[in-house]
Amino acid sequence: MPVPASQTPEPKDTARLEAFSDGVFAIAITLLILEIRVPALPPGGGNGRLWSALLALWPSLLAFTLSFFVILLMWVNHHELIRLVRAVDYPLLFANGFLLLLVTFVPFPTAVLARYLGTSAANAAAAFYCGTFLVGSLAWGVLKPTIARSRRLVRSDVPDALLERVRKAYVVGPLVYAASVVVALWSAPAGLALCTSLWILWVRLRYRSGQRPLT
Amino acid sequence: MPVPASQTPEPKDTARLEAFSDGVFAIAITLLILEIRVPALPPGGGNGRLWSALLALWPSLLAFTLSFFVILLMWVNHHELIRLVRAVDYPLLFANGFLLLLVTFVPFPTAVLARYLGTSAANAAAAFYCGTFLVGSLAWGVLKPTIARSRRLVRSDVPDALLERVRKAYVVGPLVYAASVVVALWSAPAGLALCTSLWILWVRLRYRSGQRPLT
Amino acid sequence: MPVPASQTPEPKDTARLEAFSDGVFAIAITLLILEIRVPALPPGGGNGRLWSALLALWPSLLAFTLSFFVILLMWVNHHELIRLVRAVDYPLLFANGFLLLLVTFVPFPTAVLARYLGTSAANAAAAFYCGTFLVGSLAWGVLKPTIARSRRLVRSDVPDALLERVRKAYVVGPLVYAASVVVALWSAPAGLALCTSLWILWVRLRYRSGQRPLT
Amino acid sequence: MPVPASQTPEPKDTARLEAFSDGVFAIAITLLILEIRVPALPPGGGNGRLWSALLALWPSLLAFTLSFFVILLMWVNHHELIRLVRAVDYPLLFANGFLLLLVTFVPFPTAVLARYLGTSAANAAAAFYCGTFLVGSLAWGVLKPTIARSRRLVRSDVPDALLERVRKAYVVGPLVYAASVVVALWSAPAGLALCTSLWILWVRLRYRSGQRPLT
Repeated sequence: MPVPASQTPEPKDTARLEAFSDGVFAIAITLLILEIRVPALPPGGGNGRLWSALLALWPSLLAFTLSFFVILLMWVNHHELIRLVRAVDYPLLFANGFLLLLVTFVPFPTAVLARYLGTSAANAAAAFYCGTFLVGSLAWGVLKPTIARSRRLVRSDVPDALLERVRKAYVVGPLVYAASVVVALWSAPAGLALCTSLWILWVRLRYRSGQRPLT
Repeated sequence: MPVPASQTPEPKDTARLEAFSDGVFAIAITLLILEIRVPALPPGGGNGRLWSALLALWPSLLAFTLSFFVILLMWVNHHELIRLVRAVDYPLLFANGFLLLLVTFVPFPTAVLARYLGTSAANAAAAFYCGTFLVGSLAWGVLKPTIARSRRLVRSDVPDALLERVRKAYVVGPLVYAASVVVALWSAPAGLALCTSLWILWVRLRYRSGQRPLT
Repeated sequence: MPVPASQTPEPKDTARLEAFSDGVFAIAITLLILEIRVPALPPGGGNGRLWSALLALWPSLLAFTLSFFVILLMWVNHHELIRLVRAVDYPLLFANGFLLLLVTFVPFPTAVLARYLGTSAANAAAAFYCGTFLVGSLAWGVLKPTIARSRRLVRSDVPDALLERVRKAYVVGPLVYAASVVVALWSAPAGLALCTSLWILWVRLRYRSGQRPLT
Repeated sequence: MPVPASQTPEPKDTARLEAFSDGVFAIAITLLILEIRVPALPPGGGNGRLWSALLALWPSLLAFTLSFFVILLMWVNHHELIRLVRAVDYPLLFANGFLLLLVTFVPFPTAVLARYLGTSAANAAAAFYCGTFLVGSLAWGVLKPTIARSRRLVRSDVPDALLERVRKAYVVGPLVYAASVVVALWSAPAGLALCTSLWILWVRLRYRSGQRPLT
C-alpha cells in the first residue's frame, strides 16, 4: 500500500511533465465545445424553431458528453500513473507525448461522430470513433511499461507488486475496443455502448476502491 | 476562522486537480471571444460602416461580458472551495469533472444568446442560457457535499462549522436560476437581469466580507 | 531594493491566481493565430499563386505580431506586479479578472485590424485596436492600487517606496493610448506607430534596468 | 555531469516562465487538430463515402502528426534548457517570448501544408513549412546565448563546459532547415523528408544518451 504523500519527503521532478500534460488534457476537453455550432434558423424563425433546432443537436451533445468523460477518465488515469513517478527520462517524455497525440486527436473523431451519427454513415463514424480509443489504449500500453521499466524513475515507496501491475500489458482494454470497432460496423449504437460500458466499469472499479484519499 | 496558510505546514495534494481545473476555466473563459466574428462589410464599406457594424455586435459583446464574469465567479468559487481540500479521492475527481463539464459548455449557450438575443427567438435563447446555470448550480450541489462528506479530504484547520456550511445544500442558487428560466420565457431581458442580479449579489457579499486576505 | 527571492522564506499564496492568469495569457496569445486563415487559391493555382496569397496576408501577419508582443508585454508586466504579492483577497481577484477580460478580448480587435487594415475602413479598425489598449491601461490603473492599498497583501520585503510607485496612477499610458486613438482616426499607420512606440519604449526601459535577475 | 535535482536545494525562480511557456506549447500543440475539418459528404453519402473522405484527409493527418512531433520536440528542448536556469531577467523573458512567437505560429504553416500538399502548390507550401522552422532555429539561437551569457541566471551546479556548449551557436539546425527550404522548392516530399530526418536524428541522440533520469 503506497505511503501517503504527506510522509514522502522524496522530491518529485515531474512538474513540467504534469503542467504540459494537464494543459493538453484541459485544452482538448474544452475544445470539444467548439464542434457544437450555433444552429442557423430560417428568417423569422421564433422561439419554437430555436428549441427544435437545439433538440436536433442531440448527436453533437451526446458526442460532446461522451468525449468529455473519456478525456476526463484519461486524465484521472494519467494522474494515477504519474503519481508513482519521481524522475523523467527521454523515453518517458516521448511515450507521454505519444499518449498526448491521441488526446489532442479526440476532438476530430468526436466531430465526425456528431456530424454523421444520425445519418447513413453512422457505422463508419462510430467505428472511427471507437478505433481512436483502440489506438489510445495502445499508447497506454507503451507509456506504462516505459515507466515501470526503471526503478530510478519511480518513487522509492512504490511497492514492487504495484510496479509489476503497471508493467503488465493491459489486455482487456484493447480487446474490448477492437470488439467495439467491429460491432460498430454492424450497429453504431451497439459499438458506442460497448465502449461506454468499458468506461462505466472503469469508473465503478475506482469508486469501489476509492473511498480513501489517493496517495 | 481558518488559520492563515502561512501557518499551515500540512501538505496539500491537490496540485494537479487545481492545474487541470485552472486550465479548463482559463480556456473556457478565453474561447468566448472566438464567438464574436469579425463583421463582413459590403465592398467599398468605409470607416462609418465598420463603426456601425461593431456597434451592431452589442448582443455578442453583452453575452461575452456576462459569460466572462460568470466563469470568473465560478473560478473564484472553486478557488475558495478547493482551498479547504487537503487530499483527493475518486468521487471528488469525478464530481469536479461534472462541474468542469458545465464550465466547458458555457461558450455554447453564450454563442446561442449572442446570435438570437436581438431576434424573435430571444426568449428561447435566454432561457437556454439561464438553464445552463441552473444545471451548473446542481453541479456545485454535488461537488460541495462530496468534499464535506469526509474529514480526511479536508485541511485539519478547517472548523466543523465551516464544513457544515459547505455541506448544506445551497438552495437559493438553483431556485433563482429556475425562476430566471421561467421569467426568460416571458421576457428575455428580465430573465437575464434576474441571473445577473444573483451574480452581483454574490460579488457584493464577497466584497463586504472580503477585506482581509483569503486564508 | 527588493531582497532576492532565494532569501524570502515568506510563503506566497498566489499559486492559483498565477496559474489561472498564466493560462488566460497563454491561450489568448496562442488563439491569435486562428485568425490567420489559409488562403483559398483558384482551381489550378500553383506555387506562384500561393506565394502571392501568402504575401497578401501581410495585414494579418502584422496584426498577429503586434498583438503577440502586446500580450507578451502584459504578461511580463503582470509577472512583475504579482511577484510583490503575498496573499489575495476578493477585490484583488476581481481587479485581476477585469484585466484578464481585456486580455481575452485582444484577439477580436486584432482580427478586425487584420481584415480592414488594407481597406478604406482602416481608420476605424486601427482606432478600435488602439482603443482596446486604452481600456486595458485603465484595467492596470485599477489592479495596481488594489494591490498597493493593503500591506497585508504584499510581501514584507517590498519597500514602501516601491509600493508607493505601484500605487501612483500611471498617467502616461492612458494619455498616449487616447492620443493614438485620435491619431488613428486621421491616419491608421500613424496611430498604430504611436501605440507601438509606447511598447518599444517600455521594453527599452526594462532592458536598460534589467541586467540583473528579477527578484 | 549535472547533480541530480534531489540534491539541489537552490531555489528556482522560473515557475511562471515555465507555466506560461508550457501553456503556449500545450495550446499550440492542441490547436493543430482544429485544422482537420470534418469532411462534408454529398446527400445520401453512406459509410463507404465517409471512409473514402477520411482517407482523403491524409495530407491533413500527415501535417498534424509532423507538427505535433515538432512542437513536442521543441517542448522537450525547452524543458532541457530551462532546467539549467535559476533566475530570470528581462532579456531572457523577451528571448523566450520570441521563441514562443514561432511556436504559436506553427499551426498556420501546418494548415497551409495540409491544404496544398496534394496540389500543384505543394512546393510553396512545403518550403513555407520548412522555412518556419528555419526561423524557429534562429529563435533558439537567440534564447540559448541569452541564458548562457550570465552565470547569475544559471544554477550553480551547472558545469562551465555545459554552459559553453549551450552558448555555442547551433549551426547544424539552421543549415539543414535552409537546405530543406531549397530542396522543397524542387520536391515537396524531399524537403519535408530532410526536415523530418533532422527531428528523427535529434530524438535518436536523446534516446541513446537518455537512459538515465534527467537532472
